[in-house]
Amino acid sequence: MPYKSLTYDKVTILGGLWGSKENLLRKTTVWAVYDRFKETGRFDAFKCDKNAKIKPHVYWDSDVAKWIEGVAYLTKQKRDPKLEKIVDEIVDEIEKNQLPCGYFNSYFIPMEPENIFANRDCHELYCAGHLLEASIAYFEATGKEKFLELMLKYIDYIEKRFKIDCDAGFTTPGHEEIELALVRLYNLTGEKKHLELAKFFVSERGKHADEDIYIDWAESKYSQSHKEPKSQRTAEGHSVRAVYLYSAMADLALKENDEELKLACECIFDDIINRKMYITGGIGSTHLGEAFTTPFDLPSEGAYAESCAAIGLIFFAQRMLNLTCEKKYADVIERVLYNGFLSSFSLDGKAFFYVNPLEIVPQNHTRHASVKHSDPLPPMTRKEVFECSCCPPNIVRFLGSLGSYIYTYDDKNIYLQQYISSKSTFNIGGEEITLTQKTSYPENGKITLKASGDVTVFVRVPEYLGDVKIGKNGYLPVNLVKNKEKTIEFEIPTILIEAHSKVKDCVGKVALMRGPVVYCLEGCDNEYDIFNIRIDRNTDFTHGFNEELGVPTITLDAFIKQSSNSLYAPISQNRKRVKAKFIPYYAFANRGESPMQVWTLAE
Amino acid sequence: MPYKSLTYDKVTILGGLWGSKENLLRKTTVWAVYDRFKETGRFDAFKCDKNAKIKPHVYWDSDVAKWIEGVAYLTKQKRDPKLEKIVDEIVDEIEKNQLPCGYFNSYFIPMEPENIFANRDCHELYCAGHLLEASIAYFEATGKEKFLELMLKYIDYIEKRFKIDCDAGFTTPGHEEIELALVRLYNLTGEKKHLELAKFFVSERGKHADEDIYIDWAESKYSQSHKEPKSQRTAEGHSVRAVYLYSAMADLALKENDEELKLACECIFDDIINRKMYITGGIGSTHLGEAFTTPFDLPSEGAYAESCAAIGLIFFAQRMLNLTCEKKYADVIERVLYNGFLSSFSLDGKAFFYVNPLEIVPQNHTRHASVKHSDPLPPMTRKEVFECSCCPPNIVRFLGSLGSYIYTYDDKNIYLQQYISSKSTFNIGGEEITLTQKTSYPENGKITLKASGDVTVFVRVPEYLGDVKIGKNGYLPVNLVKNKEKTIEFEIPTILIEAHSKVKDCVGKVALMRGPVVYCLEGCDNEYDIFNIRIDRNTDFTHGFNEELGVPTITLDAFIKQSSNSLYAPISQNRKRVKAKFIPYYAFANRGESPMQVWTLAE
Repeated sequence: MPYKSLTYDKVTILGGLWGSKENLLRKTTVWAVYDRFKETGRFDAFKCDKNAKIKPHVYWDSDVAKWIEGVAYLTKQKRDPKLEKIVDEIVDEIEKNQLPCGYFNSYFIPMEPENIFANRDCHELYCAGHLLEASIAYFEATGKEKFLELMLKYIDYIEKRFKIDCDAGFTTPGHEEIELALVRLYNLTGEKKHLELAKFFVSERGKHADEDIYIDWAESKYSQSHKEPKSQRTAEGHSVRAVYLYSAMADLALKENDEELKLACECIFDDIINRKMYITGGIGSTHLGEAFTTPFDLPSEGAYAESCAAIGLIFFAQRMLNLTCEKKYADVIERVLYNGFLSSFSLDGKAFFYVNPLEIVPQNHTRHASVKHSDPLPPMTRKEVFECSCCPPNIVRFLGSLGSYIYTYDDKNIYLQQYISSKSTFNIGGEEITLTQKTSYPENGKITLKASGDVTVFVRVPEYLGDVKIGKNGYLPVNLVKNKEKTIEFEIPTILIEAHSKVKDCVGKVALMRGPVVYCLEGCDNEYDIFNIRIDRNTDFTHGFNEELGVPTITLDAFIKQSSNSLYAPISQNRKRVKAKFIPYYAFANRGESPMQVWTLAE
Repeated sequence: MPYKSLTYDKVTILGGLWGSKENLLRKTTVWAVYDRFKETGRFDAFKCDKNAKIKPHVYWDSDVAKWIEGVAYLTKQKRDPKLEKIVDEIVDEIEKNQLPCGYFNSYFIPMEPENIFANRDCHELYCAGHLLEASIAYFEATGKEKFLELMLKYIDYIEKRFKIDCDAGFTTPGHEEIELALVRLYNLTGEKKHLELAKFFVSERGKHADEDIYIDWAESKYSQSHKEPKSQRTAEGHSVRAVYLYSAMADLALKENDEELKLACECIFDDIINRKMYITGGIGSTHLGEAFTTPFDLPSEGAYAESCAAIGLIFFAQRMLNLTCEKKYADVIERVLYNGFLSSFSLDGKAFFYVNPLEIVPQNHTRHASVKHSDPLPPMTRKEVFECSCCPPNIVRFLGSLGSYIYTYDDKNIYLQQYISSKSTFNIGGEEITLTQKTSYPENGKITLKASGDVTVFVRVPEYLGDVKIGKNGYLPVNLVKNKEKTIEFEIPTILIEAHSKVKDCVGKVALMRGPVVYCLEGCDNEYDIFNIRIDRNTDFTHGFNEELGVPTITLDAFIKQSSNSLYAPISQNRKRVKAKFIPYYAFANRGESPMQVWTLAE
């Protein structure tokens, strides 16, 4: 029988790295996003005033919905009347402006009512999915039913138009999201029609001619419409759309015990982690379509690696973990958490990355077609607002629900997936058990556990410790006796990593990791041109701390090539020993524009 | 006193590599370009029929003009009635359709007569310049005056509109070319007004507001209009436009003994060769504006390195050689000749590169924004025709006049700049001297000289022999006695080259050169992934020959990294010795699409 994830509402995060991030979320980030959304008219758009000074955009509902979902998670932990009031006002506007049929979209109602459900690329079902998720989370957090009821009416209308009358302008949405939202709704309502509608949208994909004429250069792969999902074996197209679909597929595989969908999900996941994932857990190698490309094509400077895609990969991995009980899925979640996810917002919690490059060369930033033609331009520093602002509220909602990723459990046992200080309540075979986890991870690998009853906790052995043959499939069994603390300790090794030889951009290069954290070289820490540093493969590691950033540092032995003044000259071995100072990747770009690289040549 | 170049009409190339290319030009290339131009309507456009089925383009006159110029050079060496008839017919059409005022442009006359000289970006003066150069060459080759007279009338009209009445819609052209054409006209006519008009177009550049609003992302640097030319110190903007302007500046510096312009030219040339030139002699690092970028920004895969820019760099270098008597300019000409120029057309003489990349990764070719957004797409194989077809006829005219680049001379001495088998006639201080050069260069460095009179020939010592302190400023004096052969021999070393440490794309990498020829790895010669090969810095060189391509080969010792199946793993030293087989860069992409790289990692 599969695991279940212990949901965030049963978990309280207690200090440490993630406790501080949760505080930052509540105090700063949720309001930073609020302010920008307010300023850009995203909240006012819900008034559906066609004469409003600021014109809405087709995807704005989803931005606000993700923010509301984040607010709901914060509210569930601790109510905040100011935040709740904002949400209630938005819900009132939805109630006021929802069409009698149930349809709601703050762009189409005032701006293009004649084009409702006419265009597959207009994000209506994507917005509906996010609004639905927000309404469920808000209901679960506050017990207030109105938002959920409005959305249930909308979902009935969607079912009618797409599945019963089949008279919408398209069959499957260009951007997935509604699918997984409907499974979540089914989990709440238990109504078969909600699950059936989710299945409908997943199973109809790849069967319709209109899915083929999407964007010329991307073709139907862009929206994963090149094949029926159950027949797909590789990760393709727009990476956020992709992982949202794969998450829904995994949900359905679990609900329906669907071996075909499960196999598809397993193959796709392996394709990602073995061929298409940056060392940071970022996915989507090209700006062109924000998409997956070919196997092993993982350029550092041109990396897209959108923050939303990193979060979506966690969604997918979490569902695969519940489906298969295999630890590799939790390993990937850890990789994303400490790197591609943590990098997506600034240390002060106010600014965000949409794109998370693995290399920044400031002087060439706007000079090459690869970056110049993308919109938005990949910034060299995190920005407080984006034209397309999907990532900041996604960060809010993900961080608000982080507790859900710490444990899975079954009838008998608890599985500790992430090392995060927390207090959690389980129902194990009918018995309520409270489990406390104390740790300073990833600073060190010491984990102290205490439970309110006798229980075995299987602790995931981190991926970076290699193929460990301990316990059950890489989980270390820790038998807890009621109310007695037990401490285990993993080594946190500092390791030079190399990529598969087919990753052209990384040939001859190494990356530095300490435990789960990928490090990077930033220009402002090094007096030499960082692109000319070559790591000494036999280096020692000197650990330190950067007070300004509040992050650990590692210093390595390296060489600097000293060249003649000629642009081209016969090879020489003229080099100088230097120190290369690394900081965690997640902390880069917090001190203004600076050159940065994750992969460094080694000798 | 400065040198003069011995012009192509005094030189007959005799066999060897360049003799075979000249034969290929006469037998194949000139006709291959003719056929494509015929097919695409470029010749018919001269009928100026506004109802013609194929619409002309504003720059087509320049394409045909360059082809005519090439035909003129072939004609001067050996008349060809078929080619001459084609040119005469075009000239008849020009005569028929030229406006009474003298204006001619096969696009504007039929299509937009109301917009004549209205738009700086419409290539009218660029086309006029090429037509003028063609008419001069054709007059010099055949003695026929009609084409030249038509163009003289046009130039008078240009002078009137731009310099006397100043009533054209702009002051300086967006694309330079007319400037150097006018100096060439002055050389023929000796009429001061032609030189003055050239000076006018050069000196007015950078002074006018309309030059600033060119293309948003490139601004006035795109057309070198950011400063007055005499104040410019760096190579900027569209690389073909740039080197055409710099050539005209060098011409004027020589004619006018203008020290300000000379200094500008010297600084700009040094900026190119010390910071902005590929090892192949290619220039223009980005597709975005086909332009120079920042110092040391020389990406291999994204390289633009347009064929026309390589040819233009030779034009500029040749003028600098005449202006300064410094051998470095002839060294650059050699670098371009054997690499960036030779690579621009296929071994069969029928197909062409517009863009000459230093690395090709087929599977990513259309997946990245850097290549996808450029128009035309950089092809992986040479193409028989381009939408924008400036390069093929430029190759025709350059190859037709190659003889001009072999010698310079002054009152007393002959300077041998390029090692090319040839027979040449000089007038040295009133005495006619015939000089024969026999060589198999670059196969070997043996050069046999014989002159019809006593003379000293200063033979350029090739750049790749290093800082040689021989004779006069890097020229080896060879005293020839009337009718007595004398043979000298240079070593042709095989050398691994490294780039300046600031060239980020080349850090840790080496390039292979034998004499002036840059070599490359092509996938079809190597059974391993060429991007995973690392050259052993202590390698031996094994020389061979590729019968299929008819080119030399060099085999090196190298390593292949063998990685585990993981995408990321701790570093290992798991490697295997292999052989890496190189061919000359100029011969790549003659066997279909294949991975290719010039710069290879070394250990």
